[in-house]
Amino acid sequence: MKTEKELQEFIKSGRKEYMIGLTIDCVIFGYHDQQLKVLLGCYKGLNGFGLPGGYIKKTELLSVAAQRILKEKTSLDNVYLEQFYIFGDTPFRKQKIDIHPSIANTWLAERTFAIGYFALVEFSKVTPEPDFLVGPYEWHDVNGLPPLLFDHKEMITKALDHLRINLYHKPIGYNLLERKFTLPEIRSLYETILEKELDRRNFPKKLMSLGLIKDTNEVRKIGQHRSPKLYTFDKKNYNTALREGIVLAL
Amino acid sequence: MKTEKELQEFIKSGRKEYMIGLTIDCVIFGYHDQQLKVLLGCYKGLNGFGLPGGYIKKTELLSVAAQRILKEKTSLDNVYLEQFYIFGDTPFRKQKIDIHPSIANTWLAERTFAIGYFALVEFSKVTPEPDFLVGPYEWHDVNGLPPLLFDHKEMITKALDHLRINLYHKPIGYNLLERKFTLPEIRSLYETILEKELDRRNFPKKLMSLGLIKDTNEVRKIGQHRSPKLYTFDKKNYNTALREGIVLAL
Repeated sequence: MKTEKELQEFIKSGRKEYMIGLTIDCVIFGYHDQQLKVLLGCYKGLNGFGLPGGYIKKTELLSVAAQRILKEKTSLDNVYLEQFYIFGDTPFRKQKIDIHPSIANTWLAERTFAIGYFALVEFSKVTPEPDFLVGPYEWHDVNGLPPLLFDHKEMITKALDHLRINLYHKPIGYNLLERKFTLPEIRSLYETILEKELDRRNFPKKLMSLGLIKDTNEVRKIGQHRSPKLYTFDKKNYNTALREGIVLAL
Repeated sequence: MKTEKELQEFIKSGRKEYMIGLTIDCVIFGYHDQQLKVLLGCYKGLNGFGLPGGYIKKTELLSVAAQRILKEKTSLDNVYLEQFYIFGDTPFRKQKIDIHPSIANTWLAERTFAIGYFALVEFSKVTPEPDFLVGPYEWHDVNGLPPLLFDHKEMITKALDHLRINLYHKPIGYNLLERKFTLPEIRSLYETILEKELDRRNFPKKLMSLGLIKDTNEVRKIGQHRSPKLYTFDKKNYNTALREGIVLAL
């Protein structure tokens, strides 16, 4: 835990180093085997859960700050973060409730706008590590969140909306599924995020017609009578779609 | 034009009144008869075009500030604004270039993050009015923009991306078309924004199957042999779709 002295030092030097009244909060979604989770950390001084977040340096580009904060707080690296919203409608009173006594009346307690970034990772592959102030980190099911500090519940809801809309306009799955996957596996990924059942015939047809996935001509031997075909992403089309966008009607 | 004295007064009192380092800029798209335009104002001190924008009061909700700024700057009222991005990656040097000499070395010249809001209106129905600093306002075709101040060109491009993605997830047209319209009229609206041709049979079918538009059983008499059917929005379904979202595959 950050000592009182360290905290006072941060308050003193931070006033010059950081943008005042502006933070970044990261909603890191994790997918694994039909489960969608979100990364929460325990805020030590406040005894509650919240999102990893931090301040932006006065000379730092916003997107660089987001990557740095995520890495510093959780040790997660190379995660593609996407900005989704800036939260400036939370009544100031609500923000004040969750403020630690040590920072009352400092710049840390001034009204703050929070810029939300989100990402989607394979949660069995990453091990977030705590920093001084926040941790340990835990993956929580998006449908079973504990009470959250600040307006972080609202942030997760909004991030989830964006993640879902993104699904119709950007390919996903690379880095979340094995290199070769079955059709039920990729369908489960989409179904888990959208929380709705998709047609088992039409869904792969649409991905195929967009050129996103292709048949590997291999099968996976599961049992004597079950050997589903294996598919893989067409990386070239996938990258073009990431860059230019798609329209996927599910 | 704001006098030097007024400007100095604003600089002095504004430091206490406004959030420092944070502005709102509004990208107001205007549609009329197959034309898509954007509202630009002439920045008097800088002799260049830019978007209407302003500062957020320290005690003001973000969404309230956006409405207030648009109204103060352009006298536009009751425009539904939607936040789309916060710009914090513009190198600080680029921002500095466009700063008026009178505000150099004041809080107005500090590094600023700009929160982008956009809207879509029927441009023949609105008459924006200038304020002290910016004006007159003019509608410029999105494909024929003059050189713009600051990073406003990038903002318009990004806003246009969001407007287009929105089209697949939210109904539009109400307040942009007459109460009763022909199928070519609503198709033109979508085609103008998307800058692509849509199938003249499938497009209305999709709107109908989502319950967004309905046949009025009336026709418009254009000539002896031309009397296209008139349609109207199903306001109940339209509002539900606005609230809950749709998936429109075009």
